[in-house]
Amino acid sequence: MVRTFTFRPIGRIRSRFKRPEDIPPPAFAPPGFFDRSRGELRIGKKYEPALKDIEGFSHLIVLFAFHKSRVSHLQAVPPGQTERRGIFATRSPHRPNPLGLTVVRLLGRRGPVIRVAGLDLVDGTPILDLKPLTERDRPARIRTGWLKK
Amino acid sequence: MVRTFTFRPIGRIRSRFKRPEDIPPPAFAPPGFFDRSRGELRIGKKYEPALKDIEGFSHLIVLFAFHKSRVSHLQAVPPGQTERRGIFATRSPHRPNPLGLTVVRLLGRRGPVIRVAGLDLVDGTPILDLKPLTERDRPARIRTGWLKK
Repeated sequence: MVRTFTFRPIGRIRSRFKRPEDIPPPAFAPPGFFDRSRGELRIGKKYEPALKDIEGFSHLIVLFAFHKSRVSHLQAVPPGQTERRGIFATRSPHRPNPLGLTVVRLLGRRGPVIRVAGLDLVDGTPILDLKPLTERDRPARIRTGWLKK
Repeated sequence: MVRTFTFRPIGRIRSRFKRPEDIPPPAFAPPGFFDRSRGELRIGKKYEPALKDIEGFSHLIVLFAFHKSRVSHLQAVPPGQTERRGIFATRSPHRPNPLGLTVVRLLGRRGPVIRVAGLDLVDGTPILDLKPLTERDRPARIRTGWLKK
């Protein structure tokens, strides 16, 4: 028996994107599209003490559930591509565990509501965790495989 | 009723750190300590097709369960600090959902086993997801609040 792990949402995304189809794949979005995309992380009131000092960080890592995903693939052809890639070499929502990650810029906080920019998530997305983005998450040089221009 | 999300490990960490106490807090680690820390992501054989083309990326985001964490706090005093911080402004394992994230450098892959550097995880840690690190995860300039030198 493999132990499983069960998580409960700590909050929800508030976004102008109401359906997944409203969000362009990054490869097709106009330059700066997501930088201009603002929204809110609405954290549950009981977690408000857990947000203390978070506004000292410019960027947050949002871990969320791909709650609209109904299928799981091992491989997929990314939007605009012609070749199949392993799902762990993509950011597809249709993964063995539908866990998502996005990096947002923190604009401000009022109580349990955090205003952010850079949002590429659909309204109502369940937030599972928030973490401060640190220098250790940001290697100086990276190579991005099939994504490279 | 809030919907919960249940995830099943896709693999395990192989690390020379056998217990949490073997891993120094980043603030106390010698320079380059984690860069030199090598280990393996041992992915389940059935997920091997999901790794196709992953070796084109220099860095991976590993999402894992803090399986040794037995408590959850809303605030904590980080190692070497004197002030309490909100848990979402820290990377503490003792969070409402014990989800962890670490960025590793990919050294090579043989079948379902990926050799990596930069590992700060304990042996046997359950891996929940792997994602390629992309430019969108790496803002040009960041501010790191209470962590700043």
